[in-house]
Amino acid sequence: MEPRVRFADRLCDAVKRKGTCLVVGLDPVAERLPVELRGGSQPAGGGACRIDAILEFCTQTAELVAPMVPAVKINIAFFERYLAAGIDAYFELVGRAKRFGLEVIGDVKRGDIGHTAAMYAAAHLADGDSTTGVRRYVPDAVTVNGFAGMEGILPFAEAADREGRGVFVWVRASNPTAAEIQDFAGGDGRMMHEVLADVVGRVARQPARIGDSGYSSVGMVAGGLSAEKALEFRARYDHVWFLVPGYGRQGCAAADCVKLCKADGTGALINASRSIIYAFETPSYAERFGGDWKAAVEQAVVDARADLARAAGEK
Amino acid sequence: MEPRVRFADRLCDAVKRKGTCLVVGLDPVAERLPVELRGGSQPAGGGACRIDAILEFCTQTAELVAPMVPAVKINIAFFERYLAAGIDAYFELVGRAKRFGLEVIGDVKRGDIGHTAAMYAAAHLADGDSTTGVRRYVPDAVTVNGFAGMEGILPFAEAADREGRGVFVWVRASNPTAAEIQDFAGGDGRMMHEVLADVVGRVARQPARIGDSGYSSVGMVAGGLSAEKALEFRARYDHVWFLVPGYGRQGCAAADCVKLCKADGTGALINASRSIIYAFETPSYAERFGGDWKAAVEQAVVDARADLARAAGEK
Repeated sequence: MEPRVRFADRLCDAVKRKGTCLVVGLDPVAERLPVELRGGSQPAGGGACRIDAILEFCTQTAELVAPMVPAVKINIAFFERYLAAGIDAYFELVGRAKRFGLEVIGDVKRGDIGHTAAMYAAAHLADGDSTTGVRRYVPDAVTVNGFAGMEGILPFAEAADREGRGVFVWVRASNPTAAEIQDFAGGDGRMMHEVLADVVGRVARQPARIGDSGYSSVGMVAGGLSAEKALEFRARYDHVWFLVPGYGRQGCAAADCVKLCKADGTGALINASRSIIYAFETPSYAERFGGDWKAAVEQAVVDARADLARAAGEK
Repeated sequence: MEPRVRFADRLCDAVKRKGTCLVVGLDPVAERLPVELRGGSQPAGGGACRIDAILEFCTQTAELVAPMVPAVKINIAFFERYLAAGIDAYFELVGRAKRFGLEVIGDVKRGDIGHTAAMYAAAHLADGDSTTGVRRYVPDAVTVNGFAGMEGILPFAEAADREGRGVFVWVRASNPTAAEIQDFAGGDGRMMHEVLADVVGRVARQPARIGDSGYSSVGMVAGGLSAEKALEFRARYDHVWFLVPGYGRQGCAAADCVKLCKADGTGALINASRSIIYAFETPSYAERFGGDWKAAVEQAVVDARADLARAAGEK
């Protein structure tokens, strides 16, 4: 049974309970798994073995970090790579992470116009039902590509509404070349990503979508914002949860990321993926923990939490 | 074995051979299948039955239209709805449509930044290999969401390069609310979708991507363009294949769609989905052909081909 509390409210509670806005991103590739999970050399036709090893690694990582972070973000592309077997593994991992008490964000970035968007929303946000005969765990929220505008976003928001789930619409990416498209400056002084944010803000602001915490079930993925822009977004979209990519390996400093948090620490989830899940490869951790990959991952979470807490304290 | 001829050149050949730029879009929902394919009433746990019926309907439709059109576009969202079983059915359908001699476009609209985009590209454009152990048919081209800019597009273009395949980057959507985002007017007089088109045009123009036909393996999905804009795009991106959604049910007139074709009939694929695959529901066809759904679908293709040919003749 799904909990009846809405996603945005559950997230508030989880962030306060765990005492951090850090989210661990699971973007696993077989080549970088801890050696003891790789199952030795590559067997012939190793696809099934690899996705099994990936699922095992992610399961152990989710269990390890569950007491320390409110949520995990699972990047479906790294599972979809293994086609149907990967999709099965993705939903299996969603279920396991939920059983560990985590909020689970499915990073699926799906987006299209009306009817097609509704199909994607049904695949990724709806419980199994008599239409598909499929029953499985579903993420608490998914990321959405809002390029098609209001009509492409609403089917996801409405599917989330029906099940107490959430969506994060991708408003600004963290990669360098995103700027050419997303920062395209309009004649009215706004940038393209601000226009998109305003569309998302309108969907988010529907009173039926606002929970007891004051936050909406519709949030935004917002990466690579300047400190000034981050403060502006925090003020303008006070009812919105932000999901912030790029902390850690991608080079967004804690001080910039936490500008999207409110004073009580809620309002933004700061995601770190590779810097956490492959911490055992980082020389300083490798030296300290040797072959104990779990100890390295755990320490990386402790360190990232501390880094974000320090940055929030200095705000 | 994949043919060695490049996608853009194969497409040229197919359009000339079949004598039309019409493409049939497969967006199947179980509720609208011909009654004899529905398998009577809905059995309990009917998901598997439904996806089987959908696969059968699409297979029969692809076989039926194969002599009359150069390509089919398969919308993965309508399969993904059935999760892993749907993904298996999608790739199975891709293989069958290719065996019928069709070029196959996977309408997947995937998009994300660098590493994640590479994962999606591997899932949807790469042959099975020792990395995944997976072996199956792969579409000749896929649609891509280019919101992340150059870095999000290149991994797909490069995966297509490796296998003689193609990509169509989604530049302009055909839905009404797309305009708020995609027609956002810049201070430099360009609209947002024109900025995106320029990025795609740069990727497409790489000499290594241009085939003997003069067309690139990188094309654009371009819907809802005004007649003037369509002519402008045709002239500016003379090396680009356009994929045009919205003809038929979505209300784009043939006269507008064919403006993206060159004088020899190549250069644009005009997609019709629901108006063809559900033709047996259309009163005029239903009256004429009774319960013979295949005859209705076949006639709808004949009529759409004639409509496009007439419009091209009047250009």
